[in-house]
Amino acid sequence: KLGTLSPQTKHISKEEEEKCTLGILERLDAGEVVVGDGGFLLTLEKRGYVKAGLWTPEAVVEHPNAVRQLHMEFLRAGSNVMQTFTFSANEDNMESQYFEYAEEAVWAVEVLKESGKPVAATMCIGPEGDMHGVTPGECAVKLVKAGASIIGVNCRFGPWTSLKTMRLMKEGLQAAGLKAHLMVQSLVFHMPDCGKGGFVDLPEYPFALEPRVATRWDIQKYAREAYNLGIRYIGGCCGFEPYHIRAIAEELAPERGFLPPASEKHGSWGSGLNMHTKPWIRARARREYWENLLPASGRPFCPSLSKPDV
Amino acid sequence: KLGTLSPQTKHISKEEEEKCTLGILERLDAGEVVVGDGGFLLTLEKRGYVKAGLWTPEAVVEHPNAVRQLHMEFLRAGSNVMQTFTFSANEDNMESQYFEYAEEAVWAVEVLKESGKPVAATMCIGPEGDMHGVTPGECAVKLVKAGASIIGVNCRFGPWTSLKTMRLMKEGLQAAGLKAHLMVQSLVFHMPDCGKGGFVDLPEYPFALEPRVATRWDIQKYAREAYNLGIRYIGGCCGFEPYHIRAIAEELAPERGFLPPASEKHGSWGSGLNMHTKPWIRARARREYWENLLPASGRPFCPSLSKPDV
Amino acid sequence: KLGTLSPQTKHISKEEEEKCTLGILERLDAGEVVVGDGGFLLTLEKRGYVKAGLWTPEAVVEHPNAVRQLHMEFLRAGSNVMQTFTFSANEDNMESQYFEYAEEAVWAVEVLKESGKPVAATMCIGPEGDMHGVTPGECAVKLVKAGASIIGVNCRFGPWTSLKTMRLMKEGLQAAGLKAHLMVQSLVFHMPDCGKGGFVDLPEYPFALEPRVATRWDIQKYAREAYNLGIRYIGGCCGFEPYHIRAIAEELAPERGFLPPASEKHGSWGSGLNMHTKPWIRARARREYWENLLPASGRPFCPSLSKPDV
Amino acid sequence: KLGTLSPQTKHISKEEEEKCTLGILERLDAGEVVVGDGGFLLTLEKRGYVKAGLWTPEAVVEHPNAVRQLHMEFLRAGSNVMQTFTFSANEDNMESQYFEYAEEAVWAVEVLKESGKPVAATMCIGPEGDMHGVTPGECAVKLVKAGASIIGVNCRFGPWTSLKTMRLMKEGLQAAGLKAHLMVQSLVFHMPDCGKGGFVDLPEYPFALEPRVATRWDIQKYAREAYNLGIRYIGGCCGFEPYHIRAIAEELAPERGFLPPASEKHGSWGSGLNMHTKPWIRARARREYWENLLPASGRPFCPSLSKPDV
Repeated sequence: KLGTLSPQTKHISKEEEEKCTLGILERLDAGEVVVGDGGFLLTLEKRGYVKAGLWTPEAVVEHPNAVRQLHMEFLRAGSNVMQTFTFSANEDNMESQYFEYAEEAVWAVEVLKESGKPVAATMCIGPEGDMHGVTPGECAVKLVKAGASIIGVNCRFGPWTSLKTMRLMKEGLQAAGLKAHLMVQSLVFHMPDCGKGGFVDLPEYPFALEPRVATRWDIQKYAREAYNLGIRYIGGCCGFEPYHIRAIAEELAPERGFLPPASEKHGSWGSGLNMHTKPWIRARARREYWENLLPASGRPFCPSLSKPDV
Repeated sequence: KLGTLSPQTKHISKEEEEKCTLGILERLDAGEVVVGDGGFLLTLEKRGYVKAGLWTPEAVVEHPNAVRQLHMEFLRAGSNVMQTFTFSANEDNMESQYFEYAEEAVWAVEVLKESGKPVAATMCIGPEGDMHGVTPGECAVKLVKAGASIIGVNCRFGPWTSLKTMRLMKEGLQAAGLKAHLMVQSLVFHMPDCGKGGFVDLPEYPFALEPRVATRWDIQKYAREAYNLGIRYIGGCCGFEPYHIRAIAEELAPERGFLPPASEKHGSWGSGLNMHTKPWIRARARREYWENLLPASGRPFCPSLSKPDV
Repeated sequence: KLGTLSPQTKHISKEEEEKCTLGILERLDAGEVVVGDGGFLLTLEKRGYVKAGLWTPEAVVEHPNAVRQLHMEFLRAGSNVMQTFTFSANEDNMESQYFEYAEEAVWAVEVLKESGKPVAATMCIGPEGDMHGVTPGECAVKLVKAGASIIGVNCRFGPWTSLKTMRLMKEGLQAAGLKAHLMVQSLVFHMPDCGKGGFVDLPEYPFALEPRVATRWDIQKYAREAYNLGIRYIGGCCGFEPYHIRAIAEELAPERGFLPPASEKHGSWGSGLNMHTKPWIRARARREYWENLLPASGRPFCPSLSKPDV
Repeated sequence: KLGTLSPQTKHISKEEEEKCTLGILERLDAGEVVVGDGGFLLTLEKRGYVKAGLWTPEAVVEHPNAVRQLHMEFLRAGSNVMQTFTFSANEDNMESQYFEYAEEAVWAVEVLKESGKPVAATMCIGPEGDMHGVTPGECAVKLVKAGASIIGVNCRFGPWTSLKTMRLMKEGLQAAGLKAHLMVQSLVFHMPDCGKGGFVDLPEYPFALEPRVATRWDIQKYAREAYNLGIRYIGGCCGFEPYHIRAIAEELAPERGFLPPASEKHGSWGSGLNMHTKPWIRARARREYWENLLPASGRPFCPSLSKPDV
């Protein structure tokens, strides 16, 4: 996805540039960390404003307050970028909208490039590659050669898988002697059992993904690992709620020099528990506790992995 | 918790009575099903407006739009009752606010009863009982004898455990030849591993409960089982989001005769998937599929149950 | 099961008494710990000599060497008692052989008592009781009043469930002011999901119980907990292999004052690994390691609990 | 491992050739399926005759009856080949004995080839390859070029991983225009979480592998899949007990035309349960039941996968 067509690709708007003294490229060039936003479709579905299966964004017109409220929450959680909620993820449209061939993405980057604005292109690609046989490394090289300044992945895969793809993209660029800013917006779900097609092929999609939702601590690890890989545009896609975005902003607060507004309502690493009257709950008010906790599913009759339908 | 002191007990307000032609007791007496609302504290914590550990409701003043938005969502999802968001769940306050002895609840019911309004009393009690040795059955009898018209449980335990307690309360009333309307507002989390103290004693509380969140289908089963038990006030507590409340309203639509507004964005039993271009995703557009699915956690390195800290 | 009829009840034979200077009662009265043997049927089934479903002991005649070899292994592992392998667990016979009513067991104890030998009676009973409404405590009292010197449980339930029943039996005796020696021979399988009917009602019985088999370290904990409960005859039933019996004998070696012969081939608590060339395997040569290890099933597509068929 | 040095490589002995009218190559050339034997070290460790960590075969001298008994059981279960139990798996020896470079295996094959007997060479190699960078395909080609008539894998990996390696070996041979008989002897453990080093690097090795043991039905699938891959020498390594070998022989009975002796004590696909008095147990006496059962671990506090130590 590219440009103004979709939330997955960011063609930075005039207004947005004016609001900030600096454009996104200048920020990234200056070494800043940019925090992306989270997922609109799945979150608004749970709030009652988007229909699963259809995934169309008419809520913008029908319930603008509800959409505005979610924008406010992401902003408050630390997002630097507010994507316009205009992406139609209609499953029929998916086929024609989404790029099926890497070449299509390349053409789109070339067209957008003519506008004179920086072009960011993120692909729905996994570590094993896709799009009629293109590897992540090859894909990265093609996009940068076409003129993209920022490249990366979004949607379809979970945090660790997305980072694995990013590592391959980065290595592909390095091997080709190319440079670009890196960007990642993974899904919020733990999905080591995903196939090439990503989360839609898992039997739990889209109505039973709850047990796979990452905790805030998982997302802090994801943000740190992304940062260590050299990625400087770090956000989320489907399933990322405001508190997940806040977790990115909190993890990278030392690098960025500030906490997001929503952190006034969040003690770092559970420190809000340190006044609890029960000593065993107070004992949870520390980083090591949450970093090492292996959270139970509470579902002993369920498996821990599923087989994708294809 | 009782009366105006907290969201856990409903002392129906003047305004609310005037809005409806009928009061809550008249409705329940007439055999109506009343759908409660969901959890404010945990949901607003994830949205960035409530601080975990402190759990205080200053968001009402600081961010009224955010609170109003969540009220709107629950209303749209089918809630008949909007609780005022004034409960201070401050962990220090908990000790003094919460009833430690069943007798305290009894006194509160007696005081509220004098106001001439119907009194609903829900207790945080599990199947094994609590409160210095009172069983669910004994507790139910005490509350009804004190004058409560509606009794039940809320918070602390998951859906199946809460229903188990309700069954014992009902049996206690029957054995004593008493009658009352029944009410249940369980947590959204799967917690068969809970001890007497409920969810706060599980190691995942409050920041790693994600894998335990019930799906909408789990909540439909909960609503049906509650209905079959004779419970007619059915809602949720911590962790219940608008789509969980919608699941209650959809499951009981045949009995109530109507769907909630938010169902315009929800195909019943996944029917919204029946136009999908991929046949294996279309195949998920049916009730049997979601009723029988055992959702994976995506976390093979985690256990399925935890040991409570006490 | 009682007396010479079955391996579950021990009527000590003439020969056995002569072999030892002391009879079993004298030993137990003197405070000795008696280590029982393990399971013959399931072990010989895996070796190819017993037919599952039929569970008949014709191997004694058809393949005496195979049976003798298993006896040798249990003896070498530390068993003090060698049960005759004459129990016909034929599923048809089960109905008529097994005691359906506690009274039957009482009559059998009374008859055997007349022989003048010590009578040991173990019942297939769980913590919730069975046998037309008898609790473990009541059952214990009946057997001791009938003349049994040693009482306890065997088969049907796993280690922790069996010990829970034993605790109830012990409390029943204490409440009645009675005394008896206690005996436990649990199954080797982890079965917290068992119903009243025990392991035969689990869907995995009898051909897919492998993932439930206890490790040697689990059995050491079982032996210690049994000892702490005051049980002095400690053995195993179906699924207990020679190394499980050795684990009992090793755990209780400090109390008994000696190790079994098979310990010449077993370093206590994994110490046999301390010469390994790989440092991370050497690091496993210690008690804390094995005591705290949570062993993975290697089966991420399987649940951790099952629902019993009844 | 090669030749007479170890059980992992079979240099067929004079006596063995005389016993059979046909040598192993003649049999395989004629299209016969050869059933291998199972694991001696781990099985005899559980019986009390081998010391874990040391893994030396002095039991042959110290307890010949115990070793002979296990040989008898494998024979009865259907093994066509009885390996001499002379392999010293002493962990110190491992380093010098095991081939570190594929070239060493090649030299050994060349030396054994001079004896004029057929040489079978099995390697401890996983799908990702090993031995200083040799892939399974390259390894297969080297061994066949050196003169091996039978090649394959044994030990270190579980059934599905071993078959994956075999597929790569087969493809390597096909690409090089070479032919050889294929042989597989996997471990009995489910280990999708294995790293390159195989099972010794899993935290459960060697004393907590119980939950990973394959059922007889798992092994039937393994045997069928091996057969379908074109493998005609199918056996097992560590952890394979007689009933696992019987499962291979039963699965391939239609192809071989006969059942092993131990099948007189085994109803195929659970048919031995069809006379059970409880209808829900009788209902398990069929193939679909056992093929589709997902066996629970009975350990809800344990994970389903582990992280290898390296």
